Amino acid sequence: MTDLPVIAPLDRSAEAALWATIAGKAKPPGALGRIESLAVELALIQSRTTPSAARAILLVFAGDHGMTEAGVSSYPATVTTAMVETFLAGKASANAFARAVGGVEVRVVDAGVASDLPPRAALIDAKVAKGTRNAAEAPAMSEAELSLALDRGAQIARQAVADGADVVILGEMGIGNTASAALIMHRLAPARLDLCVGLGAGHSPEGLARKRAIINAAAARSDVTDAMGVLTQFGGFEIAMMAGAILGAAAVRAPVLIDGFICTSAALAAVRLEPKARDYLLFTHRSAEAGHRRMLEAMEAEPLLDLDLRLGEGTGALLALPLVRAAAALLNEVASLDDVLSGNL
Amino acid sequence: MTDLPVIAPLDRSAEAALWATIAGKAKPPGALGRIESLAVELALIQSRTTPSAARAILLVFAGDHGMTEAGVSSYPATVTTAMVETFLAGKASANAFARAVGGVEVRVVDAGVASDLPPRAALIDAKVAKGTRNAAEAPAMSEAELSLALDRGAQIARQAVADGADVVILGEMGIGNTASAALIMHRLAPARLDLCVGLGAGHSPEGLARKRAIINAAAARSDVTDAMGVLTQFGGFEIAMMAGAILGAAAVRAPVLIDGFICTSAALAAVRLEPKARDYLLFTHRSAEAGHRRMLEAMEAEPLLDLDLRLGEGTGALLALPLVRAAAALLNEVASLDDVLSGNL
Repeated sequence: MTDLPVIAPLDRSAEAALWATIAGKAKPPGALGRIESLAVELALIQSRTTPSAARAILLVFAGDHGMTEAGVSSYPATVTTAMVETFLAGKASANAFARAVGGVEVRVVDAGVASDLPPRAALIDAKVAKGTRNAAEAPAMSEAELSLALDRGAQIARQAVADGADVVILGEMGIGNTASAALIMHRLAPARLDLCVGLGAGHSPEGLARKRAIINAAAARSDVTDAMGVLTQFGGFEIAMMAGAILGAAAVRAPVLIDGFICTSAALAAVRLEPKARDYLLFTHRSAEAGHRRMLEAMEAEPLLDLDLRLGEGTGALLALPLVRAAAALLNEVASLDDVLSGNL
Repeated sequence: MTDLPVIAPLDRSAEAALWATIAGKAKPPGALGRIESLAVELALIQSRTTPSAARAILLVFAGDHGMTEAGVSSYPATVTTAMVETFLAGKASANAFARAVGGVEVRVVDAGVASDLPPRAALIDAKVAKGTRNAAEAPAMSEAELSLALDRGAQIARQAVADGADVVILGEMGIGNTASAALIMHRLAPARLDLCVGLGAGHSPEGLARKRAIINAAAARSDVTDAMGVLTQFGGFEIAMMAGAILGAAAVRAPVLIDGFICTSAALAAVRLEPKARDYLLFTHRSAEAGHRRMLEAMEAEPLLDLDLRLGEGTGALLALPLVRAAAALLNEVASLDDVLSGNL
């Protein structure tokens, strides 16, 4: 990637008019709290007074991590492949939640899974390599690989919007990826490394100590603090590709629903690469993973939900989609108080 | 009402098996946080290992309050009628949110609106009287009126379940009804009266002082602390009818989604009338109205959402419905880890 997608600053010229419209709705001023501000954000991002979140596409980016071979996770890397198959079979939590909220197409992206995946209709082959290198010993990826990941992510998001998505939802699957996310947070939030490392998918005390040792070794290997350098050093392919997807979606004024800890690390990288991307992001939930609260604060993000989730896959973002739809419905469908009081229904 | 609906204690015998099923799903143990406990609650209430929240009926109970004539609200009682017409026209926030989440039928119940309402298909005429009496001067309703309200509420909820509702959602509209709810909370939580009174739909400092004076006068008139007595003294018809609906739904093992401050006061009354009703309630959100947090705590309720809402109408409960559906989908649709790892998809 020689050039990042060009993102326009969010045009806030309609903000006062949007707030006035909401203030005139048939309800006490401010009574719909976060839904009101969400409605304004959505309308500004889409540059429409009648925004929509009816059609959504969930992009689940999957990748493997060299640090997993070193034991950074309590699960083996083969689980990444097994879960990709589960998404494609429609039987993962993200699929179930997508159906529960309705109107969501699930696309699975092979950003860098370690195995060969047979082609399938819902599988996008964007594989950069078969897993990153072990960041504790070497850069997770080359600069050329990072460029490829960012480019492909941007293209995949643009395609989703071209295919009719009103909003793009990001999710991920990658055994070991909380380690990469913790290192990204450490350097880009920035925050003390020990505050960035949590239990991920679960660990014994010994497992967590091993995870911390591997992450510490990776951090000791490079003192990089710029977003391109951090992604190169610490990975992963799915995180870099999500960062590219964020930039690609923002460039076409599509709102992006940000999921949990790993997805937020991609958002952090994207925002450090291009601060104008921040205003196109809707942060959906505060995860139970240690560090997520602090990483959200680094972007002044106040998420919509707090449900003790720590799964990823886009599950938390999917649960927030109905709130975004309600926000659109507030602007589009609720009568004005004037019309109600004059009987003009 | 001579007899309250008979509610069976929640049968928890399947709880361990449900938790084992969820623990065996293709995700790290506990990674879906509140959605996991919600799935267990829903399955226990419906007494099914494959629960459902696909079909929901929102019952919006409307009523007027004698305290409104005394100036307890900054809005006139005529707004209650105007909003009933708005619900029936499908143009209130609750209608818009119902469409946004999908699969929700909205039924409007005239529990005690002060005006004559022409019959309409979506309007249930359960009018007890044309508004309560001014509780600052006299009991809001007679014991006979309370019985009628409870009976009709129970019947309306049972009918909703008979008509196919997997879950019953409660909402309300009634200018002045935060005053009744505050008095109910004061006596039944119990809590110091000044901690129970908030801004409701909005007030000037003078308006809030007037609201407090009217509520204090009502409280000074009676020292009643039993639920029947409290509802009789302080009203309102829509709150009493919601309490009846809760008891009626619980009697047929239907989960009830509880909305904000006023709806929660009805839940508190129902639970004080019949503590076994508590386990059939799903508390959906913590409202911005002062006192709601404390009223929820009085029932050891930890709500799902916290979005600074303070509208009522069932709007917050509607936004939580997708979470309930996701919880059902977790049990019904997500593969087991065993199946994922053995490739048995």
